[in-house]
Amino acid sequence: MAVVIDIDDPADPRVADFRDLNNADRRPDLPGGKGLVIAEGVVVVQRMLTSRFTPSALLGVGKRYEQLTDDLAGVDLPYYRASAEVMAEIVGFHLNRGVLAAARRPAELSAAQVLTGARTVAVLEGVNDHENIGSIFRNAAGLGADAVLFGDRCSDPLYRRAVRVSMGHVLRIPFATLPPFPEGLNLLRDNGFQIIALTPNPKADTLATAMTGERVALLLGAEGPGLTEETMSASDIRARIPMTPGTDSLNVATAAAMAFYERVRAQ
Amino acid sequence: MAVVIDIDDPADPRVADFRDLNNADRRPDLPGGKGLVIAEGVVVVQRMLTSRFTPSALLGVGKRYEQLTDDLAGVDLPYYRASAEVMAEIVGFHLNRGVLAAARRPAELSAAQVLTGARTVAVLEGVNDHENIGSIFRNAAGLGADAVLFGDRCSDPLYRRAVRVSMGHVLRIPFATLPPFPEGLNLLRDNGFQIIALTPNPKADTLATAMTGERVALLLGAEGPGLTEETMSASDIRARIPMTPGTDSLNVATAAAMAFYERVRAQ
Repeated sequence: MAVVIDIDDPADPRVADFRDLNNADRRPDLPGGKGLVIAEGVVVVQRMLTSRFTPSALLGVGKRYEQLTDDLAGVDLPYYRASAEVMAEIVGFHLNRGVLAAARRPAELSAAQVLTGARTVAVLEGVNDHENIGSIFRNAAGLGADAVLFGDRCSDPLYRRAVRVSMGHVLRIPFATLPPFPEGLNLLRDNGFQIIALTPNPKADTLATAMTGERVALLLGAEGPGLTEETMSASDIRARIPMTPGTDSLNVATAAAMAFYERVRAQ
Repeated sequence: MAVVIDIDDPADPRVADFRDLNNADRRPDLPGGKGLVIAEGVVVVQRMLTSRFTPSALLGVGKRYEQLTDDLAGVDLPYYRASAEVMAEIVGFHLNRGVLAAARRPAELSAAQVLTGARTVAVLEGVNDHENIGSIFRNAAGLGADAVLFGDRCSDPLYRRAVRVSMGHVLRIPFATLPPFPEGLNLLRDNGFQIIALTPNPKADTLATAMTGERVALLLGAEGPGLTEETMSASDIRARIPMTPGTDSLNVATAAAMAFYERVRAQ
């Protein structure tokens, strides 16, 4: 059971993991980055508690502790209880979700681990927007996609903003980094995945026609530049979402959602 | 052809429409609201210039004028040219898109006008997040939905943030306000629309099965509360997107995208 410890002094060393939160969740290799994974709000904290990201402590107001009592019954960690004002001084800004949990980063999963048993995976290239990455995990969770694989030039999925936008699903949907392409794609192919490159190109087959594999890997590039030509060429098939000519490409998380939806639409 | 007028003094009365931009785009019935429609950035300004929202003036840096030369060739309005610093003083914050256009609100379209010729429309109830509204218009434009109808308790689609997130498509996809439900829904029914209420309820038919009309109206509620029970009851059929149990409902703009996608997926 969590032990409640009241914190009145924002300088208390016991809450060091929550200090200066706008930098603390940076990757450990970046300036000021401690590489911590931060969960914000009751729902995301609940998801962290049942994930492989084991928090070392929580910081929150009393009311949130009450909401989390059942979730915290079986865990042995400190709940640092503070007023909203003291919390704001610790983290560096006013936080309206009222509770945080902080976990050290566990070892990354391997691509082989993540692919075991997976039927539908998203493979990202150059997706460097934390909000889009968070949304992709949220959509994957909602629509039954099994994993997310990272290719070149993607942002850190464990950044606080990505965790928050994913509603905590980044802590639950497994992810891994692929070897550089085309080797990374060959790994997928060797595991029997049909490799589908999403493109706005109107000459490509529709997603509905192109997606025929029992296991599918959906390659998604950043909004705007899309996938590199090398990656397109290394895919098994190019597929498009039918779009109105003259409009912008869809947001990458929305495109991912449609591809995931195409897999489950008849279920 | 647009006339270039250099502005050196942020207090110049000619740029009054762009002053204090964080309030100026509020609805005219709200404090400080002038009800202006503001387009930001080259792409959105281009879309405004070909829309029914006729700008009265533009304000931008010299470089953006050059990018817009062709678009401005046939129009008769002032381009107030200013440095980035002077622009920031006028609008009240630093604006990184470098160009703005301001239009007065034209009269609202009627629901009957908007429905003429439409095959796929989104009908929103209680969607009060400007970003979600903007995304719905962007997705409608990309995926060929024809119009957006507003029911009760929705936010203003012409708010600056909504215009920006829509990539300017809120200026192009027609929209109108429906009479209060169920009268508003009867108007759709009288026009031959199949009225489909989206729900996370696992007992409902899938969207793929439920959507059978030649003309369809897709009822969407806010993330979280969803549609009211009264509105659900007044629909023709309830339909679900197949979702993983225990996850959160999808973002409303993502749900809309999937419904629009279902209409065009085989095209």
